[in-house]
Formats: sequence, structure tokens, C-alpha cells
Amino acid sequence: MEQDRILQILQEVKAGAVTPEQAMLDLKMCPFEDLGYAKVDHHRALRQGVPEVIFGSGKTPGQIVGITRSMLARGSGVLITRLSPEAAEAVAAEIEISYDPVSRIAFAGERPAPDTEGRIVVATGGTSDIPVAEEAAVTAESLGNPVERLYDVGVAGLHRLLAKLDVLMSARVVVAVAGMEGALASVIGGLCDCPVIAVPTSIGYGANFGGLSALLSMLNSCASGVSVVNIDNGFGAGYLASMINHMGGTKS
Amino acid sequence: MEQDRILQILQEVKAGAVTPEQAMLDLKMCPFEDLGYAKVDHHRALRQGVPEVIFGSGKTPGQIVGITRSMLARGSGVLITRLSPEAAEAVAAEIEISYDPVSRIAFAGERPAPDTEGRIVVATGGTSDIPVAEEAAVTAESLGNPVERLYDVGVAGLHRLLAKLDVLMSARVVVAVAGMEGALASVIGGLCDCPVIAVPTSIGYGANFGGLSALLSMLNSCASGVSVVNIDNGFGAGYLASMINHMGGTKS
Amino acid sequence: MEQDRILQILQEVKAGAVTPEQAMLDLKMCPFEDLGYAKVDHHRALRQGVPEVIFGSGKTPGQIVGITRSMLARGSGVLITRLSPEAAEAVAAEIEISYDPVSRIAFAGERPAPDTEGRIVVATGGTSDIPVAEEAAVTAESLGNPVERLYDVGVAGLHRLLAKLDVLMSARVVVAVAGMEGALASVIGGLCDCPVIAVPTSIGYGANFGGLSALLSMLNSCASGVSVVNIDNGFGAGYLASMINHMGGTKS
Amino acid sequence: MEQDRILQILQEVKAGAVTPEQAMLDLKMCPFEDLGYAKVDHHRALRQGVPEVIFGSGKTPGQIVGITRSMLARGSGVLITRLSPEAAEAVAAEIEISYDPVSRIAFAGERPAPDTEGRIVVATGGTSDIPVAEEAAVTAESLGNPVERLYDVGVAGLHRLLAKLDVLMSARVVVAVAGMEGALASVIGGLCDCPVIAVPTSIGYGANFGGLSALLSMLNSCASGVSVVNIDNGFGAGYLASMINHMGGTKS
Amino acid sequence: MEQDRILQILQEVKAGAVTPEQAMLDLKMCPFEDLGYAKVDHHRALRQGVPEVIFGSGKTPGQIVGITRSMLARGSGVLITRLSPEAAEAVAAEIEISYDPVSRIAFAGERPAPDTEGRIVVATGGTSDIPVAEEAAVTAESLGNPVERLYDVGVAGLHRLLAKLDVLMSARVVVAVAGMEGALASVIGGLCDCPVIAVPTSIGYGANFGGLSALLSMLNSCASGVSVVNIDNGFGAGYLASMINHMGGTKS
Amino acid sequence: MEQDRILQILQEVKAGAVTPEQAMLDLKMCPFEDLGYAKVDHHRALRQGVPEVIFGSGKTPGQIVGITRSMLARGSGVLITRLSPEAAEAVAAEIEISYDPVSRIAFAGERPAPDTEGRIVVATGGTSDIPVAEEAAVTAESLGNPVERLYDVGVAGLHRLLAKLDVLMSARVVVAVAGMEGALASVIGGLCDCPVIAVPTSIGYGANFGGLSALLSMLNSCASGVSVVNIDNGFGAGYLASMINHMGGTKS
Amino acid sequence: MEQDRILQILQEVKAGAVTPEQAMLDLKMCPFEDLGYAKVDHHRALRQGVPEVIFGSGKTPGQIVGITRSMLARGSGVLITRLSPEAAEAVAAEIEISYDPVSRIAFAGERPAPDTEGRIVVATGGTSDIPVAEEAAVTAESLGNPVERLYDVGVAGLHRLLAKLDVLMSARVVVAVAGMEGALASVIGGLCDCPVIAVPTSIGYGANFGGLSALLSMLNSCASGVSVVNIDNGFGAGYLASMINHMGGTKS
Amino acid sequence: MEQDRILQILQEVKAGAVTPEQAMLDLKMCPFEDLGYAKVDHHRALRQGVPEVIFGSGKTPGQIVGITRSMLARGSGVLITRLSPEAAEAVAAEIEISYDPVSRIAFAGERPAPDTEGRIVVATGGTSDIPVAEEAAVTAESLGNPVERLYDVGVAGLHRLLAKLDVLMSARVVVAVAGMEGALASVIGGLCDCPVIAVPTSIGYGANFGGLSALLSMLNSCASGVSVVNIDNGFGAGYLASMINHMGGTKS
Repeated sequence: MEQDRILQILQEVKAGAVTPEQAMLDLKMCPFEDLGYAKVDHHRALRQGVPEVIFGSGKTPGQIVGITRSMLARGSGVLITRLSPEAAEAVAAEIEISYDPVSRIAFAGERPAPDTEGRIVVATGGTSDIPVAEEAAVTAESLGNPVERLYDVGVAGLHRLLAKLDVLMSARVVVAVAGMEGALASVIGGLCDCPVIAVPTSIGYGANFGGLSALLSMLNSCASGVSVVNIDNGFGAGYLASMINHMGGTKS
Repeated sequence: MEQDRILQILQEVKAGAVTPEQAMLDLKMCPFEDLGYAKVDHHRALRQGVPEVIFGSGKTPGQIVGITRSMLARGSGVLITRLSPEAAEAVAAEIEISYDPVSRIAFAGERPAPDTEGRIVVATGGTSDIPVAEEAAVTAESLGNPVERLYDVGVAGLHRLLAKLDVLMSARVVVAVAGMEGALASVIGGLCDCPVIAVPTSIGYGANFGGLSALLSMLNSCASGVSVVNIDNGFGAGYLASMINHMGGTKS
Repeated sequence: MEQDRILQILQEVKAGAVTPEQAMLDLKMCPFEDLGYAKVDHHRALRQGVPEVIFGSGKTPGQIVGITRSMLARGSGVLITRLSPEAAEAVAAEIEISYDPVSRIAFAGERPAPDTEGRIVVATGGTSDIPVAEEAAVTAESLGNPVERLYDVGVAGLHRLLAKLDVLMSARVVVAVAGMEGALASVIGGLCDCPVIAVPTSIGYGANFGGLSALLSMLNSCASGVSVVNIDNGFGAGYLASMINHMGGTKS
Repeated sequence: MEQDRILQILQEVKAGAVTPEQAMLDLKMCPFEDLGYAKVDHHRALRQGVPEVIFGSGKTPGQIVGITRSMLARGSGVLITRLSPEAAEAVAAEIEISYDPVSRIAFAGERPAPDTEGRIVVATGGTSDIPVAEEAAVTAESLGNPVERLYDVGVAGLHRLLAKLDVLMSARVVVAVAGMEGALASVIGGLCDCPVIAVPTSIGYGANFGGLSALLSMLNSCASGVSVVNIDNGFGAGYLASMINHMGGTKS
Repeated sequence: MEQDRILQILQEVKAGAVTPEQAMLDLKMCPFEDLGYAKVDHHRALRQGVPEVIFGSGKTPGQIVGITRSMLARGSGVLITRLSPEAAEAVAAEIEISYDPVSRIAFAGERPAPDTEGRIVVATGGTSDIPVAEEAAVTAESLGNPVERLYDVGVAGLHRLLAKLDVLMSARVVVAVAGMEGALASVIGGLCDCPVIAVPTSIGYGANFGGLSALLSMLNSCASGVSVVNIDNGFGAGYLASMINHMGGTKS
Repeated sequence: MEQDRILQILQEVKAGAVTPEQAMLDLKMCPFEDLGYAKVDHHRALRQGVPEVIFGSGKTPGQIVGITRSMLARGSGVLITRLSPEAAEAVAAEIEISYDPVSRIAFAGERPAPDTEGRIVVATGGTSDIPVAEEAAVTAESLGNPVERLYDVGVAGLHRLLAKLDVLMSARVVVAVAGMEGALASVIGGLCDCPVIAVPTSIGYGANFGGLSALLSMLNSCASGVSVVNIDNGFGAGYLASMINHMGGTKS
Repeated sequence: MEQDRILQILQEVKAGAVTPEQAMLDLKMCPFEDLGYAKVDHHRALRQGVPEVIFGSGKTPGQIVGITRSMLARGSGVLITRLSPEAAEAVAAEIEISYDPVSRIAFAGERPAPDTEGRIVVATGGTSDIPVAEEAAVTAESLGNPVERLYDVGVAGLHRLLAKLDVLMSARVVVAVAGMEGALASVIGGLCDCPVIAVPTSIGYGANFGGLSALLSMLNSCASGVSVVNIDNGFGAGYLASMINHMGGTKS
Repeated sequence: MEQDRILQILQEVKAGAVTPEQAMLDLKMCPFEDLGYAKVDHHRALRQGVPEVIFGSGKTPGQIVGITRSMLARGSGVLITRLSPEAAEAVAAEIEISYDPVSRIAFAGERPAPDTEGRIVVATGGTSDIPVAEEAAVTAESLGNPVERLYDVGVAGLHRLLAKLDVLMSARVVVAVAGMEGALASVIGGLCDCPVIAVPTSIGYGANFGGLSALLSMLNSCASGVSVVNIDNGFGAGYLASMINHMGGTKS
């Protein structure tokens, strides 16, 4: 690829086909394009079939259709996040997609089968945190991960969480999604011996200040192994969970 | 009481012993003075021997000595909070006090014995929260409550807390003291069926912003029965806990 | 119950009916499930007829109907909070409920009669605080408490509050609901010798920042015996007030 | 005055004593200097003997001595605010000043006698607010106002305030100084029918966030007639109170 | 007045017309009602015809009509603030009011003529601040003050302000209304030798954070004589300005 | 100009045509009007054809039409910013304008051709930042600057930015528009040796708090030569960029 | 261990050595202690020789010595974080430790050799971020990870970072440590295809507000694969990086 | 330089001296190093003698001496900012520097003479803002700019600023330094037709919240041509001012 192209330019210089001066102009932007593509390639090398991602929020259905078609043409599946039901309907009129209204994620192309045996557990404090959790879960599934859901296991009813200890213990990565006091991440972080990705949600009212309470709570977690992503950022948590989960090995 | 005094004035008016004009002057401040004294009397009526409280912070040793002497003269014990070791030494040179450097509380006069069988449990998330917890515990003890301490039972090591479930379950009121993510209050609130007074502490660093993270976390607690006092306000929690605990009955 | 089940397992081990290894697996989750049910039972033991609570906000009418039916089947009344008029209408089409549009609370099943003589006073600073206050008052009434309302007694017109001193003085617990400067809690805290639960409201504009001004004001109250719940959290205040009020004894 | 000077220039032009071109240069800065001096003159016209003010904080004793001498030379008294005891000592070695360590205000030159019968009342919520209150009180006194102090009349002990209603009622302006929940301003604003200047103080701890709680509380006051100055700005309140008080008339 | 009423009661007691017991009941609420009514009376004594005020926001048209009718019956004019055009229409269908859609203020009953020669100047930084300024101006006019408007004289075009220096200089009180950087208050405070009431507005976008930028700016004003009311609180500024303006004397 | 007018007045005084007293009145407002007009003239002297600007937000179509007509009459083009499509339609019914719905800018009158060879580069982090960027770009173009757009070159895909290094390097001024983490300004500031004007946008969600994250990030830029304007303030950036760009010389 | 203990109890029940009732009491607290120890065991099973960790801040040298001795006795190495030089000296007088003053970390016992070939890269934006970075790096090294340091590669001098692309690309996990605008995490997140743990630091001044600017910037990172820990939390980042790195396999 | 080096590599390939494969490795890092050096060269090309800059804060005297010596060896002067008097003394013991204690800036090597006729004006609101202003002024002077200082011209005394209008008008760039309400930037921005760089300072107390009030005020400036740097960032303002000033041409 890019490295081949650079080599080719150099060989043309050696062969006298282009002058050094002209080659220099050609080389000028190469390494950067290389940078970009190399990264994508690295992905490919690691795991075939990883879909491309479009952040749907703030894009028109027309723009989404255009980008999706271009990506499908390159042969990869396409994951579209933050897609409102209205936008999904408009996109579906043009391209064949499967759409999940809870996670607000659409998928075009062939969905990858699980390519690892490592399990990601996605847990929520309450039922209202489920849309954010589903964004994480569907993202992770679309990237080839088996996902287990543990919803409504908030710390104010500890027995619900403890009753599922075996599920938690079986995870390679846990995504802990919670609003309000956001304590779920700390409790899970103390129970599990694996990375915990905390997702504060904007669920709540009053002094939660749009998710600030859960965010600060999670950042101040006294449990080791916990890190935090942006408020309501289910996709980011699912993507990172997949990245970590695949470090633990893929199916042979 | 006060109502008697007003009636007496009116009867003196009727009897012509005082003129209406003079009576009006007498009546002017009555209800307000009544207000103040009635409140104090009410206290006394309820529980003999409750000490008076001096908030030591920002007062000179001289001022503290003066106020304490005046209160001792009225026959009540005196609780002095937020007293630095230096100030305590200066005060101790003048009056006989017992001083606890951890809670920074001094006591002058006879300490009340427990006058209720209800137990207050004071729990902390970590060891650094102990000074605030001791302010609550010593305050509650000085007001006649049996106090049980559960220190360093933070949610990141849930087993430490769960191992003490029987202690928690035996409480009439729990004071939950925690900094950082402040999740202790929610977890205890979910486990216990009694009022939980949450005390956020300024313990921590970075995004705890001087106790803000624990404060918001506790205010957003999804457990019922939890209320919150100011950051580091051990005294307020201990005082309120005592008030509630005494509602459950006193020793006969 | 749970303790019986554990005992039964152990007896089966003794009897050789199950192997120690298999028993160990059975025991693994036991104590936690026990934990959960024990708590509910404890409630029941204390006060018969306490209703279950559903936080209606963010649940579909269908979900609410489902949960309510399941709870009614268990024989308890059901309190549904944060129920919009639209949702209430949809629920009422399926189950018989009584709905109060001011507090946005619905009740299904038999409402408990007052089971204590202790009185809870719910006071507000202004008329706009009434919906939050009603959430507290109706909650407390639904949990068996006699409730007295003192509305629009804000500190800028002190005479309105002072004219009702006798009502305030008669309370076992006061719920002080106020937006804007939130001073009501401190003033009541200074007048009364009982626990005061302060509820900041988001009522106001400009520098009240969604209830932050009242919240900070109440947390910084210099009156003893005051604690604070989340902004607009009328339910939490009513629930805690009921908990404390019942500590003062129930009707024989 | 300034207007005379402009007129004089114009008359000199008319008289041919100066050329129009030269006059234009003279006039160029006039209106602005006029602006400045007119303001000072206006002061003078109104009330003889008003002292000049130096904000001492951040100035070296040497600078303060220099400015003070220059002002004394112009014949006015000099008020120096925010002067630390150390700086005061250094200044006192050079100029004769009277220094008050509580308000941290020094005065050089002849102190004005009260020149109005209108009374300013300075009230504080607690004893720790006194330094800020004294800055307001001493400033107002130095500007010729009779000042009455009502200290430690915070709203958590309402009877202390109500017992002094007659003093409050006698004020033309009230300066209400309070930290923590800052409710004093609202309560006084509701009791009095005169302008109330609220001064939030940084006194407190935890969720008072350096005076923010009192500041927001005062800005959200539901009492009419209340306005607010910066946290701890005793001087600003005293100066404004004097300005308003003098509008009510001066001694003949 | 009230004092007369108390005296009368006492004289009736003396005369035996009422029993002391009955008198005590009458007196019970007197001081408080007195407190309230005395305040109103004091107003009356000073300036005849001052209207009562209703804060319209959050009240139904029905409630507003009811309160207005009751006040009109007492003979005073009624000022209704924060009244939306829709609510105004509904109220106007029941009572005769004059309504100003810019200030969102309605007036019922006879409007008072100016009763003082002192002039209030209301100035704004931009044209978008005008609604808040009109709330201040119309309030002040309704309370009997001559008001001069200086709109769109923001500090970024200083010449517009300076061209109106004579108007500013003629004021007894200035109300400075500004959003964004809120510098108008400081500049006017430096130019004028009278009280300046600063009203931050929520006008602006981005880092103005709903008026916070103007609020902080105004609180930190380095000009003496400036105090601040809540964001967008035109009524509060107009009311306080009227209070101060009337201290400077009324028309004979 | 103004200086001529003052001289003329003085000469009339010298000639006895006007009295000094009358001249004084004429002179009173002169410098300020001078101030205003001089500024406009200074503009004109520098660059002919610069359009006047109307901030459309918060003005009615009628007001905009009125101001525009008055400006067109003075012979200058008119730039109208923050004009909604609806308002644009209403204005277009009255005056001939060209309207760009992305930047929400309309132009009336003759558009100036580029009058400098210096190039302004407007770069964005993402595609959602484009509306703000277009406000900057169209503003700068309307003020006579050649503008190059570099959109969607955010730092998370550095190769996209580096591939356009030659464009960046060719700029006299760069406007860096970015939401979320706002890192674009620092990276460009490190790459370029020209002034970089950073525009934080409110694009994002969760912990971006309406643009606060990008704003703080840009203010803390460790690259030299970076300064910041208000969140979403594309116009301000475009205007300042034009001002700086023209310092580098105009076309001869 | 614990599982053995439970099994042993069950076997004793089977053998009739203890009654089921007595066993039940023994079992009661078991699972929780089990919970705790199981976690430690899990660690052990995975990687022999992992040290225990003591958070040194807020503990006295005496306490640290005590805990360390107890841990050494159990045979594990001990990592002590946040240890001031003074405390380190006091501890060193009692136990043999190696102390690193930059990271403020001490180690007692045998340091584990690298047990994995995966490499962790710790990068900083500036030189002042190094202490926090060293806390991360030394922690990771102490947990058996090879660590590569890339210091002072902030985004304002992009070439410094790009020149080390090969190092970055070789990492299994990157810890990105930066204060001020915190853009380093986004840039690295865009360049690398591995998990990036972002550590905001409190380095900076002014509008960095104690690390808030970097924190918000990192949370809003538009690069996938980035998560964030608390401000200055080098230990947390190093611990989590080690956890993830070991998922990629250990040395055979 | 770098471009020469690339050309040289390509010519060696052409000449067969190195293989294309080996050349590719050499080229890999080139463009980035080129990036860095090109930038420095670009500087040099433009203006000979520009000094290098060291941010002294957080560096030891030893480190500063080392870096300075290395820079002096390269032939450029060295500007050291944020150097405390103690550090300056230690550095001065090793290298010959001139140190200014007000701006806390040291200079080593030959100071550049002014190389442009364009004038930078540095203005402050108060005297306490002078240290920040001097950091800007000395920086700009060290970079070859004539600098005029206008100190203590805050908006509360507008005449002081207006009296210096001619100085302001003569500037190519203005640096406006102010704390408290930060209004200076807007007023100057409205008066001048040149870029204004606003520097908020942390000077003030109470509600200035460490410079936040001035920062927000400046960001919300309604004057065109104003941009903002970090709180107290005098160096950044001076550097940017110099960059802009040199765009207006250098001395021939």
C-alpha cells in the first residue's frame, strides 16, 4: 500500500524515471496519507470484517446515505449511531438497514459474528439508563463481542447486583452505566478483577446537573481499574470495551 | 408560661393596675422573647442535661472561655466543636475540659450518660474520613446516644461493609461519612430500613473539587431515607442523629 | 425463609443427600438473595400495609400497568410518583387508580389510614413550590401520616410564618420546601426542636441556576437539625419524614 | 469650576489672547478632566469634608504613604481600607493615622462628624461576619453617618433579630452582612421598608464555596428592596449606604 | 394605625368591654399582622396611591383575576408583572387592565401620577436588553417616579453614552441594564455620583452562561455606589430605585 | 472633519459671530460625536467599501429592513448576521439580499471584491462545526479577504490536517473552529507561525457543557499566538481575522 | 483458601463434626470474606508476585510501617504511593524500601520482573506533567510491565510526537498525561489503535481551574478508544494499564 | 535545510549510493523533523534576532541554566518568563542575565532593538494588574516592538482613559489587561480600530473567582476586534501582539 507507493517512487527515482525534485513533491504528503491508511490497515490485519462507524447526530439522512453507500462499496459493514427514528426511516427508504430504536443504532451490510470468546458485561443502575447501555451493547456486538446485559442492578438494591456476581465475574470487561449518584462503577470495580469502563448518564433531575453528579462520582472512584468516558457516551464505551476484549484473544 | 404572662398583663389592665399605654409597651417584645425562651424550655422539658454547644472555629480562646464559664454557671455541660489543639491548650489553662484531638471536640462539665437504648451507627468510606466521623460520633455521644463506629467500609471493598451487616441492621439512625465518590450513603440506604444522614467530606483530590463530588453523589442517591448535610459537617449529622434517635424513645 | 433454605441445604449435606461440593455452589448466592428479601420483610414486620412505590418518570404506561398489577397481586397498595396527566389517563384506562394532578401521584389499591398520631408539617416558601410540597405531603399521607400544610409562608413575609407557630410547634417532623433563596429551612430549623427536612426547588429564575441557590443555602443552614434532599425531591422528603415520624411511635 | 475654565478659554479666544488653534489644543482634554473633577466637585458641593479613599490591598506601605500625603495636602481626610496590621504599623511610622484592626481601616486627617440624622443599621448573621460588617460600619461613619450595629442576629435564632425590630425599623438604610445561607437579607428585607444592601461573606465551609452560597441566596431574595454587592465587600456597602442615606437629607 | 388598634383593644379591656382572655386571642396575631400591615401603612403614609404588586409568572389567569379583584376592592391600584400576552388576554376578558407587551406588565385601577421630582434613568447596553429595562421603567413609573430611558448605550460605543451625559447626571438613581459583558454598570458608576442599580440580563450566547458573565462583571464593579439584583430582575430594580428616589423627597 | 468643525467654532468665536457661551454649548458634545464618527471615517480612509454590520438575532424583520435601508442610503454594503431562514425570507420580500442559509448571513448592496492578497484559512474539527466556520468565512469574505476552507480536519485524524499543511502554511491568519475537546487550535498554533483565532463551538454533548470544554481547552492552549473569542462567535473571529489580515498590506 | 474453608465446613457437616445450625453461623460471613480474598486469589492465579498497594497520603509513617510489615509477612511486595519525602525518610528508618522522589512511590520487598512482553507507553504533554506520569510508569513497572516513556511531546510541537510514532505504535496501552488543554489524549487516540488512558493533570494556571480544562477536554475526546481517570491519578492509570496489558498475554 | 536533506537523499538514491529501501527508512521521520525546524527557520527568515523563550515556572534553576546555555550557543537571545526572584538569583550566579522583578522576566544575550515602527499599547484597569501587564510589555519589547504603557485607566474612572485617547489611537495592537469586571477590553475595543488582545487577571476577591469574572466579561465583549488569552497570561498576549504588530511591516 502506502509503503509500496513510497518504495515505487524511490524506485522510479533510482530508475531515472522521475527527477529527485519531482519525487520530493510527491513524497511531501505521502507519510500522512500513509499514517491514515496504515491505521485502518492495522485494524484490518487484526480483525477482518470490522465495520466502519458513522456518528449520525447532526448529519442529514442524505449525507448518511451517501457516506454509507461509499463505505459499503469498500466492502465493510457500516454502523450508524445516534440515528433518530425519523432519520432511520428516511435512510431505510434508500438503503437496506436494520435499525434498533432503543440504542438508536442502525447497521448496514453483513453483521459480523462473534470472533472472540471473551465476554463483555454491560450493567446499568436503573431502567432509564438502558438506552445508553444499549448503545454500548449493540456497538460491542457489532464489533464481534458476546455481550451480557445486567440491567437495573443499582447500588440502592445491592442484592440485585450480588445475585448476578457469577455473571460479573465471568466478564473480561465490564461497562457500568449509571446516572444519579453513579456509584455502580465503584461497587463493580471493587467486585471484579477486570477493566471497568464507567459511563455516566444524564438520567436524573435536580442536583445531577445533566450528568455531572455521576461523572464526578465515577472519576473519584476509589476502586482500581475504573476509567470513565463522556456522559451518555455508550458508543465510546462499547468501542473501547471491544478493543480491550480483543486483546484477550480471538477465536481460532 | 408566656401565655400566662400576657394574661396577667391583661388582667392588670382590667384591674386598672397598669394603663393600656404602659401595657402596650410591655406587650411589644413579649411574643419574640417568648419564642426564644420557649424553645430552650422545650429542650429542657424533654431531656435533662443536654449540653450547650459552642462552634469554636473563628472564636478566640478568651471568647470561648467566657462563653463556657457563663454556660457552666447555668448548670449545663458545654460541647465545644472545631477547636484546634492550640486553642484547646489555651482554654484548658483556664477551665477544666476533656479534649479529643481527632474530633477536635472539647467537653466541659459533667458528660451525660446514655439516656436511650437506640443505637447510632457512624460509618466511613475510608480512614481519612475518620476526623469528620468522630465529630459526629463524639457529638452524638455527648448528647446521650450509644454510638457504634464502622470505619473504612467503603464500597470499593463491599465485603468489609457486608461483614458488618448485623451492626448496620441494629441501628436506629446511620451517619454515613464519605469523600471521593460518596457512594457509601446509597449502599447503606439500600441495606438499612432507618434514616441515613449522609456527610460528604472534602477528602480526595482532583475532580472531587473540595467535596463537591461526594455532595452531588449523596444528593442524587437513589436510595430512600437518605438526606444530606454540609460537607465535613460532622457536628450537624451527630446532632440530627441524636434528635431522631431520641424520637425512638429514651431509657425509663 | 432464606435462613430456612440455608439450614435445609446444610441438613441435606448432613444427610448425605448432596455432596459438600454441590452444596457450596448452592450456597454461593444465598446470602444475597436473603439480604434482599429480609429487608422487605423487615418493613412488613414493622408496619402492615405500607405500599410499594413506582417512580413513574421514564416508564411507559404499559410498564407501569404491568408492575402495578404484579404488586397489587402481592396484596400491597401501590404509590406511583412523577406520573404525567397523559400517562395517568393511559394507566387509568387499565387499572383503577386515584390520581392527583398537583402532586402527580397516583394510588392503586386501598390507601392506608393514618397509623400514627405524630404530625408531619409540610411548609413552602411560595405558591409555586406547592407541586413539590404536595409530592411530599401525598407521599407521607399514603404512608400513614397525618399531614398539615403551611403554604406560602416564605421568610420575606415573616408574619405569615410566625402566625402559624403553633402549627409548626406541633410537628414531629417538618418538611421545608423552598426555591429562590431557600431561607425557609433555616428559619424553621431555628424555631422548631424537631428534624427539618429541607427540599430545595427549581422555582425561580436567573441566578437560581435550576435550584442551586436554594440547595446551597439549605446545605449551609446554620440551624441544627436540618438536612437536605435533592432539588424538587418531594417524594424523598415525604418518605424520610414518614420514616422518622414512625420512630416516634404508632397508634395502639 | 471646569465650566468656568472652558468659558475662560473661549473668552480669551474672543479677546484674541489665544489663537483658535491653541485653544483647540487646550480644549481637547478639557471635557474629560472636567468629567473627572466635576464628579469630585459635585461631591464637595454636596457634603464638605468627605474623605478620599485608598484601597490598601496590594499597595506597599510606601505607596500608601505617598498617596495619603498628597491627599492630605489637598485638604481632605483619607480613608485607607484593607490595610493589614503590618502595613498599618509601617504607615503609622510615617503619618499620623488611627487604625482599627477589626475593620482593617485606617483614617488620616480630621474625621468628619455625622452630618445627617438618618441612621444606617449594620446587621450580621454571626459573630464571624463582624470584620466585614465593621468595614461597612466604619466606612459609613467616616462618611458622616450615624451607624447602629446589630451583630449575631442570624435567622436560625429569629428571636434575637425580632427583639431588635425597633432598631431595624428606625433605619434609613440597612446593611445586611451574612455568610453561610445568607438568609438575613431576605428576612430583613421583608421586615423593613427601606433599602437593604446585602453583603455576602466568605464565612463558612464546605458547600459555601467561598461565599457563593450566600451570594446566590441574596441575589434570589424574594423580598423587595434588596440589592447585593460583592462577597466580603464591606466598603462598597458602607459607601453606597452613605450615598443613599444622604439622599434623605443632611443636618441643617 | 395598628398601634391604635392594640391600644383600642387594651382600652376595651380596661373598660370591661372584652375579657382579658378574649383580648389575648385578639392580640395573638396582632404584632404579626401589625408587622405586615404596618409596612403597607408606612407606604401609604409616605405616598398615597402606591399600587399592590402581583408576580404573574406561575399563576393562572383565574388566580390573577381573583387576587386583583380583592386588591382593587381594598382601593389600591394593582401592578401585575411577568404576565404573558396570552395570560393578559385572559385577564383582560374579566377585568379592565392596561397591558404593555414589552415589559409584560399590566396595570389595573388608577395609575398614580408622579409624586416626586427626582428622576430615575434606566439605561441599557443593547436593544435586546429593552424588555428587562422596560420592566424596571414601567414599575418605577407605576410607583410615581419620572423615568428617563437611555437605551442602546453600551460601552463598545462609548460616544453614545457620553453624548447623553447630561441625562445621566440629572438622575437621582440610575438603573443599568446589560447582558454580555455587563460593563455598563461600572462605566455609569464611574460617571455618576448617585446610586446605580445594576441588572444583569440573560441576553447573549455562549460563554454568557445565562447571564452569569454580566452578573459576575457587575458584582466585581470597581466603581463605588453600584449594587446588583438578580439576572433579568427588572421589577426588583425598578422597585428599589423608586424606594431610593423617594428618599430624596416628594412633591409638595 | 470633526477637528475642522471645532476649529470653525473657535474661529467664529474669534470673529464674534457666536458668543463664548453659545460656543460652549456647541462644544459640549463635539468630542464624543467626533469620537464616533472619527472611528468610522478612519475605517473608510483605510479601506473603501467596507460594509456595515447588523446583528440580526433578536431584531424583527421590520427593524432589519429599516436599518438596512438607512445604511444602503449612506452608500455602504450591509452584512446581516444571525439571520434565520424565516427572517431572511421576510427581509428578502422588501430588499434585494443574497442569503446563505449555512452561515445564516445575508448581504445587501454590492459585495466588495478581495482587496488584499493575504489569505485567511478557516479550519474546523468536524463537520458539525461548519455553520460557525461559515459565519467566520463569509464575514471575512464580505470584508474583502480571500478565504480558504479546511473542514473536518480534527486532531483525532491528524493525517487529514497534516495533508493540508501547505494550505495552513500559506495563511496570514488562521481561524480554528472546534467543539468537543477543542484541540485543533493548539495543534494549528504549533504548526503555523501566524496568529490563530480560536472559536470554541457548542457542538458536542455531555461534559462539553455547551462549549465550555472547548473554550477552556483553547484558553489553556500551550501554543503561542493563539487567542480565543466567545463560543460560536464566528462573526467575531472573521472580523478580527480580517482586521489582522489587512495589517499585512492591501492590493495596490 | 476461602473456598477451601467453606468446603471444609461443609465436610465437617457431612462428617457430623458440626451441626448444620452451627455451620450456618460460621457460613454467615464467609461469602463476603470469600469475596474479598477470592479477588486477591484471582490475581495470584493470574500473575504471581503482584505487590499489594498502600495509598500513603493521609497516613502516618507509623501506620504505613505497620501495614507494610503485615503485608511483607504475607510474602508479597508492597507499593506505597503518594509518599512525601519526609514520610519516606521516616519509613526508611524502620523498613528497607526503595523510594523514588519524582513519582513519590516507595517499594518494599522484591520487585517483580517484567512478566509480559506487551509494552505500555507513558506520554506527557510537558515536563511539568512528569511527576504524575512517573506515578503511572513506576506503578506499571512494579506490576510487571515494560514501560517506555515519551515525555514533553505536547500537541503544540507536533513534530516531537510524530518523531516517536514508532514507539507509540509499538504500545499495547498508552497512558496520556497532560494538563492545560489536554489535547494529547485525542491526538494519540487518533494515531494509535490501542486503548488510551488519559490522565488530566492540575498543571497550568488561570482558566485551567485545577485540572478542569484538561479533564473536560479529555472526556470530550473525539478519538475512539480513550477513557479518563481522575485529575493527577497516575496510580490509577498505571494500574489499569497493567490490567489491560496483561490481557494481551504474559511471558511463557 | 530539511528540504535540502530530502533532496540530498533522493539524489543519493538516483546516484545509486543508497537503495530505495534504505532511503525509505531515512525518509520516514524526515517530514516531521522538517516540520519542526521549518517553523523555526521561517521565524528566522522573517525577523533576525528573535529570542527563544523558556517558561521558567516549574523548572529548577539548574534546568533553566542548562537550556539557556544551549540556546545562547545557538546564537539567539533567551527570554525566561515566570522566574521567581529566588530562581533568578540562582540563575544569575551562573549566567549573565538582566532580570525584571515586576514582570518576573529575565533576558540573556543581546536584547533586540525595535525592528518595527508599529506601536503596541499595553493598558491596565488598575495598579494591581501591572505585573501581568509588564509580562506582556517586556515580552513585546524583547521581541522588537516599541511599547507604550497606559496603566490604571480602568472604566470606573473613564476620564483617565479618555485623556489618553491619542495614545490608544496610535497603536497597531492594544493589550488590555484587567481583573475584576474586565470591562476595559470592551471599552478600548469600541474606541480603537485595531486588534485588542484582552488579558483577564486574577486580581480581585469574592465573586471574581480567580479571574473568572474578567474572563467571562472579556469573552462576551460586544466590541468587534477583541480576542482573549488565558487568565494572567501576559506572555501570550505580548507574543501575539508582537506577531500581529510585525504584520504591519518592519523597519527598512
